[in-house]
Formats: sequence, structure tokens, C-alpha cells
Amino acid sequence: MLLGVLLWSTWTAAAPATPSGVSRSHGLMPVPASLQFREGRLPLTAAFSLSVRGPVDRRLETALQRMLRRLEGRTGLTLSREPTEPEKATLLVEVKSPGNPLPTLGDDESYTLEVDGNRATLRAAQVVGALRGIETLLQLLQGDRDGWFLPAVALSDRPRFPWRGLLIDVSRHWLPLEVLKRNLDGMAAVKLNVLHLHLTDDQGFRVESRRFPRLHELGSDGLYFTQQQLRELIAYAADRGIRVVPEFDMPGHVTSWLVGHSELASVPGPYSIERKWGIFDPTLDPTREEVYPFLDAFLGEMAELFPDAWMHIGGDENTGNHWRVNPAIQSFMASRGLADSHALQTYFGDRVAKILQKHGKRMMGWDEILHPTLPKDAVVQTWRGPKALAESAKQGYAGILSWGYYLDHMLPAGLHYTVDPLPADGKRMAEEANRWIPVSWYHRFQFKPPETSVREKDAPRVLGGEACMWSEFADTETIDSRIWPRLAAVAERLWSPREVTDVQDMYRRLELLRVQLEEHGLLHERTREVLLRRLAGAANPGPLRVLAELVEPVKFYDRPVQFQAATQGMPLTRLVDAARPESPEARALRTSVDELLSDAPRFARNAERLTQAFSQWRELHPELSHLLERSPALHEVRPLGEGLLALAQTGQEALSSIRSGTAPRVGWREEALQRINEAARPQGQVEFAIIQPLRELVLAAVLQPEATTLSAAAWHAWVKAEALAAIPKPPEKKK
Amino acid sequence: MLLGVLLWSTWTAAAPATPSGVSRSHGLMPVPASLQFREGRLPLTAAFSLSVRGPVDRRLETALQRMLRRLEGRTGLTLSREPTEPEKATLLVEVKSPGNPLPTLGDDESYTLEVDGNRATLRAAQVVGALRGIETLLQLLQGDRDGWFLPAVALSDRPRFPWRGLLIDVSRHWLPLEVLKRNLDGMAAVKLNVLHLHLTDDQGFRVESRRFPRLHELGSDGLYFTQQQLRELIAYAADRGIRVVPEFDMPGHVTSWLVGHSELASVPGPYSIERKWGIFDPTLDPTREEVYPFLDAFLGEMAELFPDAWMHIGGDENTGNHWRVNPAIQSFMASRGLADSHALQTYFGDRVAKILQKHGKRMMGWDEILHPTLPKDAVVQTWRGPKALAESAKQGYAGILSWGYYLDHMLPAGLHYTVDPLPADGKRMAEEANRWIPVSWYHRFQFKPPETSVREKDAPRVLGGEACMWSEFADTETIDSRIWPRLAAVAERLWSPREVTDVQDMYRRLELLRVQLEEHGLLHERTREVLLRRLAGAANPGPLRVLAELVEPVKFYDRPVQFQAATQGMPLTRLVDAARPESPEARALRTSVDELLSDAPRFARNAERLTQAFSQWRELHPELSHLLERSPALHEVRPLGEGLLALAQTGQEALSSIRSGTAPRVGWREEALQRINEAARPQGQVEFAIIQPLRELVLAAVLQPEATTLSAAAWHAWVKAEALAAIPKPPEKKK
Repeated sequence: MLLGVLLWSTWTAAAPATPSGVSRSHGLMPVPASLQFREGRLPLTAAFSLSVRGPVDRRLETALQRMLRRLEGRTGLTLSREPTEPEKATLLVEVKSPGNPLPTLGDDESYTLEVDGNRATLRAAQVVGALRGIETLLQLLQGDRDGWFLPAVALSDRPRFPWRGLLIDVSRHWLPLEVLKRNLDGMAAVKLNVLHLHLTDDQGFRVESRRFPRLHELGSDGLYFTQQQLRELIAYAADRGIRVVPEFDMPGHVTSWLVGHSELASVPGPYSIERKWGIFDPTLDPTREEVYPFLDAFLGEMAELFPDAWMHIGGDENTGNHWRVNPAIQSFMASRGLADSHALQTYFGDRVAKILQKHGKRMMGWDEILHPTLPKDAVVQTWRGPKALAESAKQGYAGILSWGYYLDHMLPAGLHYTVDPLPADGKRMAEEANRWIPVSWYHRFQFKPPETSVREKDAPRVLGGEACMWSEFADTETIDSRIWPRLAAVAERLWSPREVTDVQDMYRRLELLRVQLEEHGLLHERTREVLLRRLAGAANPGPLRVLAELVEPVKFYDRPVQFQAATQGMPLTRLVDAARPESPEARALRTSVDELLSDAPRFARNAERLTQAFSQWRELHPELSHLLERSPALHEVRPLGEGLLALAQTGQEALSSIRSGTAPRVGWREEALQRINEAARPQGQVEFAIIQPLRELVLAAVLQPEATTLSAAAWHAWVKAEALAAIPKPPEKKK
Repeated sequence: MLLGVLLWSTWTAAAPATPSGVSRSHGLMPVPASLQFREGRLPLTAAFSLSVRGPVDRRLETALQRMLRRLEGRTGLTLSREPTEPEKATLLVEVKSPGNPLPTLGDDESYTLEVDGNRATLRAAQVVGALRGIETLLQLLQGDRDGWFLPAVALSDRPRFPWRGLLIDVSRHWLPLEVLKRNLDGMAAVKLNVLHLHLTDDQGFRVESRRFPRLHELGSDGLYFTQQQLRELIAYAADRGIRVVPEFDMPGHVTSWLVGHSELASVPGPYSIERKWGIFDPTLDPTREEVYPFLDAFLGEMAELFPDAWMHIGGDENTGNHWRVNPAIQSFMASRGLADSHALQTYFGDRVAKILQKHGKRMMGWDEILHPTLPKDAVVQTWRGPKALAESAKQGYAGILSWGYYLDHMLPAGLHYTVDPLPADGKRMAEEANRWIPVSWYHRFQFKPPETSVREKDAPRVLGGEACMWSEFADTETIDSRIWPRLAAVAERLWSPREVTDVQDMYRRLELLRVQLEEHGLLHERTREVLLRRLAGAANPGPLRVLAELVEPVKFYDRPVQFQAATQGMPLTRLVDAARPESPEARALRTSVDELLSDAPRFARNAERLTQAFSQWRELHPELSHLLERSPALHEVRPLGEGLLALAQTGQEALSSIRSGTAPRVGWREEALQRINEAARPQGQVEFAIIQPLRELVLAAVLQPEATTLSAAAWHAWVKAEALAAIPKPPEKKK
């Protein structure tokens, strides 16, 4: 008998309690700056009506239409579109001024929302604040046996940081307009306000240039945004209070430019679009005078297309190799006294800065652009970390943090949530973040306490942060599941007060949001099912689903390391693409084990639930093995079938020993840990996300005689420490 | 404990057996005209290569690119795009001529496909035949423990009918381009070749007219296809060998036209877009001379936009009411000797026919256009049935059948599959079709043997058929699940030889296709999960999923009858929208009961499985009830919770009685049937699709003493007849 979604069903996050009185637990994400629940509720029925006071622009009107549609979609009610008198409306929206027609850094995003038994009132200084408040209102909607309602609340809200973004890389994998649109809707739902479009890179030039059509015609396989589409995108984003900042990465990361314009290159062509992943040598030649009129014309064209005040020119990861091998470049450097590639890049950067200035744009770039001659109005985006952020702030530059927010690293939301652009205590932040390092990286990476941190007086220069979604292993179908729901944790970090740090509560709300986000057409949940059905072919996908829920893609850059044949053309339809970056099942299992072990020496809590899980894994083994055996697309993950069985068996043995108080036999500890270590090996670029709680159960079984002699907390800490010590060190690399 | 997907997992269609030798069971849909499996297999590995011989056009090239991408998506392999010499290629495609640049009625769609251990060879007279063969090749792909392969086969194929279409109504609910594109991909997969676009109706005018922009500007809420989009759509369809036939319904069904052009109306305006469903009175005024230059200019514009030889002008469901109330129209009719509305419509039709002729188009319309003066090259599309089809063929007109193919009626695939435009035996067809009438309609509708049928000599005039997808209750998110996979049954009926009639085998292949179709981005599976997750809110959707798998939307036009408040703006996010038109779970349960009862008097077959199902329904009852109670969006279906429990209890009682050979107590039969009748009541416009097998179990329990005295077949037939007799008659309607 196969239990299918047993785990899922047992462990899904419980809904927040919704007593009809004052409710303390809520589903708001990000958490508002100030929030007070009151007695009462405002019923939401088909009689719902709406009124707007103040200057109503098209942006607010369409936003309210979308709000009504979302309320209808959730409730099944058909709501009236007729405007109502303010006094009679269920929802009154009051705006003082329309604000900037295009969202702009520093817009007033604050709002207040009051709900009592008779009405809801949303007030904002500017339309953009009302947009934020509408999302809060939608998150307040609840239902119970008496119907739909908004709980009575008094809420006052504003963002902590003014720059809260998501970078999407549309170069490495092409992502069409509808992908960006649905993600913009998701961003708006969690109050993000910047979409950073990484438009060009070695693997694709994704924007139409009418001045230099060979750029997109030869550099994109025909997969690029027309200028009309980009205008549509910018308007769509603006309607949601989101800026679009374009990035044209240079002088490195330019292979796709050089396919049609090898005359700009540091080494003679021809060039072809790069199909692999990594850091490559092709580079613009900063010593050729004709490069600058070209950039002037191209960036001028882009400056007209993109209305935002900033333009990002990348500047990262230039290897300098092509500069070193070109004698003309070397002699140019010698004649100008440019000591090294860094100096030449600075020379290049200065000239590009002047071009941007001419076109009325402020410069933005990665850490590498930081140098003394950088214009003071530039923004430095840091992938290097707190020290780099502190340094650029100290030198007077505005900065945004992306270090710690790389969604493509497949790390847990808890880690991203812990990373703070302006932490109260940098050392403590590093310690907390280390608790979230995946066990497969325990011996390979640890956050270090930052050597320096942003000085108090420089803090206002830290504008916020941007999560990054690099797209080596994400395409139209899978990218949403790589972005969501984890992005919401970053969004909360950048919006909510610094003091909002309850990770468990964040995860509870994340589970609610995960389902809500589907109303935007985001595929983060549904693609997994599609891929699993396809992988299972004609067979029942049930056992595969259970397996997929317990694994995660390998972390950081392990995927390209483990699968070096990866290219742009590789289909992203494997188990690793179906697996969630962070498995809620695995997290639930970890929590269950934690609770069980905290319950020493009784060990009653969750014992039944864990026994059921282990039984399920054992019972599905024959069907799962058969499936893994039979489907060629699953051959690469075949050992996971045996791995899961071994983990089930080990878990059951440990649990019986713990519960019965019977010491395991001699030698069992080593055998059990050995089995776990075997199962922990990545297969097909996925790894079990349930390894460490299994180790803890084994150690708990071994150490349980001591459980009565120590406090539960002390004993549990000891078990956890021993389990960490049991993580095998990776073999030394041979030279 | 909750079992979640137990049912699904236990009953999913088994994959066809794939021994390494000759395989008789296959996944091809539609079934080819001629097919012979042979010994051996052609492995499909990363070394796969492709070669094309003959005139290669862009259409074939892009089709092969898409084929490679689909092979990659399924296999996870990265395949080479380098052309190979014909002798060395894994797949050789040979085409004699490109054929018509745009797909045209009568194109040669035939092809042959030979696969042996060394290569596959696809040969076609025209590119369009190669397109069909590519789909067959993709359906042949299989995998086992030795890897991916194509079985050795010799296959020769051609369609039975040249006109195999799907009508999509984009008027009642707006459906944007991407919806049509993914459905075109699905259509191509099952070898359909006509997309009939119902572009205008009372509820929306969905095409840009540059001549009369008020048509789309005022008649569409801004939701219409630009001419550029339509050109894109036509090209997309043509690339897949699919014609696009536009329909502009007139003289009725024109409310949306009249919003901007009330001067065309039979009754003075103003008009506004119709928001409700039904048949309405607004009609063009055929007596006004200015109507014809208008239609001339508009249809002329459309004739340039749509390249197909046919243009559909509707002609259906004109109430005539607005003609009757207008004295000017009445006197016009009197002066011309036009006896009734039908005569006036004929007058109108004749004039429109001349306009179409002028613009080089052949006329197409619904049954109502049939009259003696109809041009002989017109095509009559019949929604009325075999008699109408026979009549128009007899009068010399080409005809296509849509009666029996209305997908929005929510009927089983088996019914559509049974309906044949040229049945071998019309009486038998009606009898067979009646076996598929849903039990809720048993007393309300039965197919009658057709009074006349198409004469042998008229048979060539029957060009094929079109499935119809009217969109009163389907939108962007849900329409795919209303079309797929059932459309494939119609596609097979229209392509495969008449003798291909094994319904069980059709259903087996349909289950395979259902998963494969997801690769086109079709939402028929995934939307259900999204809706259920949303309906469950924060709670585990597992119990709701089990319930949703056992119900279906009410049939024919019961939905608008039962929910008269339905409008265009109503959200389609309820349980009825999540429920499949035909539940595979329910079908599996019906089959299981059939098999159990055929196993009289042992009753061993499936007994265990049925016991498990009934236990599952009982066990999930508390959680399901809680969910139905708590979510306001589920209030309308609350009684289904108790209904499922009653069915479970009744099933279990019946089963114990049958298996133990113990007669039920006196009065049980009536009680049990009463419980079933209660549960059979529709709630929230869904109904249980498992009612009749439960009745059969009850009757089997009652009649089991006789099981030993009769043959199993005779006894089973008796039980089924008694169960049919137990279906309660609907109450007489009061006058």
C-alpha cells in the first residue's frame, strides 16, 4: 500500500488560529512596521463596495480592479464594480497625492490601514503607498464557518530600506515577458520595488538595439525583448510600484556582443554565443577609441528606453586574460602608466561614467567598479559581502547588498532571512547564518564575522538589497520555483523593522504565502508536479513525489561542478529541476526530530509521526525502485531508492532504541553512520535534505542512557554537537 | 490517518507492456491506418542524429527543432543540432514536395514511418504529412531499464476525414493568444487540422477592425486580438499544419457589434455588452440597405486577414423577436413576400453569400443556413445531428459534424468517441452512445436512432467534424481542462479508420496522452491542483483532492440552470471548476465494481481494493468535513462531505454482504438506495460520478443469493438492469 502524500498532509503548516476575537497570529509578509489587532471583524460578502477619495490615477484604479479580481478568485464571490459613496463603502481608499508618475527611489511608500466592524480604511500619502496597503489588505483576508472577513486591526507601515530588489538574469536562459510579468506580480505582493534586469552576458544579448541591430540579431538566437515589449514591461512594473533597472554588463561578460561586433573585442574574432557556464575571457577593448562612440550611441539608446535614474554597467569578473595577450593593449597601458588590469578597467569605467552622465543616468555596478574616481552618485552593488559594503559606504557611495541573497545557490530561506544589510551585530549574524549552512557544506564553507561593518554615520548610504536569480539552471518552467517562496524572506528582511527576526514565524507565514502566490500564475508549485508526472511516464508518480519532497538540489556551485556537461541547451526536466531548493518536508522532519529529542527522556513527542514516516519510506521502496529502474530519465538518481530505504531503516532502528531505552548493539553506531554517509552522497545533483536529523537520531540512540542524567536541553545540545562531529570531512584534494 | 492519493496511485492506467521483443500494446493516438510492430528496437541516446532529404522548408525545419526539444524534455538528453549524412542518421526524414505553403483542405497528410534496429525513416509526400509523422514518432518513444528507444515498426498512415477541427469560443470568455497557442500544440499532437475561432458573440467582439474600430473598442472591454496577433496565430497554426477558420456570427448573437454600431440593429439602441448566458434577441436588421456595405467592408477586411478559403458566418439561434417587434421590418417582409423570420434570414444569408463570394471566400455556417439558394460550395456545420447532416449532404452540400462533440457539455470521452460522422450503423451508434449518458440524465435524455442517415453516394460530402468548446464556464486557467484530454477521443474518431472502436483501449491510451500533453504547457492537470490548494487555503488539500477526484461538473446545461446568477464576471475558481469533466478515478471505480460483479459468485476480484477505497473515504471524513466547514468558498458543497461518508458506508455494507454471502437485513435495500439518492443530489454544480456503481453494489448485495443459480454474465446483467431501474425519476414539472 502506498501512502502518497502522507508526509505532506501530516506536516503542512497549520493555519493561524483565527478566533473571532483578537487574533495575534497573522499571515502578513512582510511584517508591518506597526500592527495592532482589535476586537471584531469586517465581513466580506457579495455586498462589498469600494470608494476612493483623493486624486485617483489610472495606476490606482487598475490596482483596485486587480484587487477585486483577486478577492473574487479567492472567495468565489462576484463583487460589484460600481463606485460607492465614501460613507457607505466597505473599503475606503484615501490618497493625498498621486506621487511620481514613475516609481522613483525615495517614493513615500507608507500607508495606514484600519479595519473595524463597519469598514476598512486605507490611507496613503502617495498612490505607491496605497499599492503596498492593498497587498496587506489582501493578506488579511480570512475565512471561517461564518464566512470571509478582515480582522479588525490598526496598522501603520513603511519600509526600512528604499531599494528592495530582485535581479533576474534573462541572458543565460531566455525568459520571455510573461515570466517577468508574473514575477512582478509576486514581487508586488511582498512589497519589493526594483526589478534588476541582467540583459546581456556571454550567453545572450537580450535587448533590441535599433542602433546596432547585429547585437540582438546575432547575439540572442532570436530570443530578445523588443523595445516595445520592454516599454510594456516597464509600464507593467510601474503600475505595481516597481522600478526597472537595466544592466549591460561590461567590459567582461560580453561574448554575445562580440558575435556581431568583433571590432570591439580585445582579441580578434570571430566570436560565437557562449553555451557553457563559467567566467570567460572575451572583453571589450578599452584602448580602442571607437569603442566609446559605440557605447555612447548604444547606452544613449538604452537611456531613452529605460526611464529609471540608474543604469547598471556590471563591471564584474573580468579575467583580464584577453588584455594580457594583446600587445597593443599592453603598450597602451604602459604608455598611460596603467599598472594592471584593474587600472585599465578603472580607465574604462571612468569613460563609461562620463557617457552615462551625458545621458542623464547615474551609474551602478558591482563591487569591482569601486575606485577613487567613481562618480559620487554611483551605487555599488555588493556580491562580496559586508566588508565591501562597509568600504564603499565609507568612501561615500550608496550601496546595496546582494551577498547572502543569491537564490540560485539553493540555500534555505532562513539563511537569507538572517543576512541583514545593517545587522545589529555582525558577529552574531555570521553565527546565526552558519546554522543554516547545508550539511553537505559544513566542512566547506562557514560565514566569518565581518572584519569591518558599516559605520553608524554611513548607514543611510546603505539603500537596501537585491536578491539575485542567475539563470544557469533555470528556465521559463522552473525559474519561479527557484525564486519563490524564498524571495519573500529577503523581501521581509528589507521591508520590516530590523527587530523582526523570528525565523519560525517567518516560515509559518511563508507557507501561507506560498499558496497565495499561485494566484499570480507563478509556477513554483505546479511545475514540480508536471515534471514528476513526466519523469514517471505512465506510472503512478506518487512514490517519486515522496522522494522529491525529501531531496534538494546540491548547493552553491556544486551543480555545474558535478555535471560539467551542462550547457545552455540542456533540458531542465530532471529530478533536480523538480526538487525544491528548500524542502518544507525536510524542514518539518528536522523540526520533528528536534522536538522529539527536546522531549528527553520521555521521547514521546512526534514519535508516532516519525515512525509513520519511516514506515512509509520503507513501504514505498519496491514501487519506487521499480520506477527508478524503469525510467531512463531517472537512472542518474537510482541510488536514492536504496538511500531512502537505508535512512528509513536507520531511523526506525534509532527510534526503537530511543523509545525502548535499549542501548544499540556494539558496532551499530558506526554501521548506522556509515549507511547515512552513503545515502548523503549526491546523485544526479540532488542530495537528501534529511541527513542531519537522521544522524542526530543515531547519536541520540547511542547517548540515550545519559538522557536521564542531564537536563533535556543539555543532553539535546550534546547530541547535536556529536552529530555535527560525525559529519565526515571531505577527502583532501590531491595536487 | 489520511491516505491522500491512494486511489490515484492504485488505479492509474498501467503502462503498456514493453517487452524487448514485439509489442502489441502501444500509446499511439489517433491509431494509425496501418501498423505492424516488429522484432527489435532503435535506441535513442545522446548520439541521436537527424537528416532530411527533399525540399526542406522553414516549416519542416522548425517542426524538427521542436521535435528535438520535446525529445530532450522527455529524456533529459542533450541532442545534437548538427545535420548528419542521410546514411548515418538515426532519423531520416524524406519529403517529396513542400505542398501548400498554407494548410489547405485536402492536403495530403499521409506518411509512412519505418523503424528498425538501425534507423527510423519518415517519408511523406508533403511537409504536412511529415508533421503528422513526427507526432507519431514522438508517441512511439518509450523507455525501460535499458534506456530510451523506439520500437521497430512499419507504419503507414492517412486521415479518414480531411476536416478535423476544434471550435474555441473566445467571445464569452476572452482567451489570449498563449491559450490558443498551447492548444494548437495539443491539437497538432493528435493530428487535428482546423482551429475554428468563434470570434464574435453577444458577450464580446474579439477582433480588431481597422475599418470599424468601434466594433472592438466598444464591444470587447479591451480584450481582443489585434490583427498582428491574429497573423501571428495563423502562422503558428500553419507551422503545425492547422487551418484557422474565423467565425463572425450573424444575424443573431451580435449584441457586442451593436454597442458601437446600433445603427445596424433591428431595434433602437443603445446596447451594452451582454454579461449573461443564453440566447438573446439583438439582431442585425436585414432590411436596412446600409447593413450590406458595412458587412462588405468588414468581411472584406477580415477576408484579407484570414487566408483560409472558408469564412463562417454563424447563422444560428436567431430568436426573430426583434424582427417581429419592428413594424418597418414586418412591412419589408410583407412587401417582399417573406413569410417568416426564416425567410428573412434566407434573404439576409443570400446577400451575405454574395459578399463572401466577392471577397473570394466560401461560406460556412450552422444548420440554419441550409436553404435552397445557399451557394453550392458552402459548408454546413451541424449542431442538430445526423438527420441534419444527411439532409444537407442530400442537397449537395459539404457538411461537418459538431453534434455529439460539445466538450462544454462535460460528457465522457467514450460518448464523443462513439459518435461517428458516418457510422456503420446509426441505430447501434445511438444505443452505444446511450451507454455513456451520465446517470443524472438517465431519465432526461436518450439518443434516438437517426430517422435518416447519409446516403452512400453522399458520404464524400461529409468532410469530418469539429469539437466545440463554448466558453460560458471556461477561462484562461480552466479551459484546457475542459478540452483535454477528451478532445483526443474526437481527434481519433476523425482520423483513424472507422473500425477502430475499442473504447477501453482508447481510455488506456488517453491516460498516457494526458501526461504527454503537459509538455505543451497545457494546464489541464495543473490548474486543478492550484484551485484545490487555493480552496483549502492554509489547510492540507489532500482530503479535498480525494473528493474532487470523485465528482464531476453537472452535465449539459445544468450549470447555468442550477446557478442562474452566473455571469461573465463570475470567478471560475470553485470546486466545479477544479473538477474534471470526466473523472478517471470514478471510471476506475466503475470498472472495479464491474469486474467484481463479473466475478460472481466468488466476488474476489478488486474486493480488497474497493474495501480500501471505502475505508479511505470514511477515514478522511473528519478532516474533510472540517475543511468544508471552515472554508467559505466550499460552503456550497458542504453536503458532499456527508454524501461521501454515506456512499462509503453503503459501499462497505454492500461489500461485506456480498463477500460473506449474508443477505442484508429487511429494509436495508430501501435505506441504502435512499442514502445514495441523497448523495446523488448536485451541490455547487458538481455531482458524484460514482453513484451508479454504488447502486449496483447495493443491488448485488440484495440479489447475491441468486448469483449461484445464474451464469455470472446473466446475473451481472440483471444487477445492472435493477440498478438502472432504481434511478429515481425526476419530479414532474408543475405547469
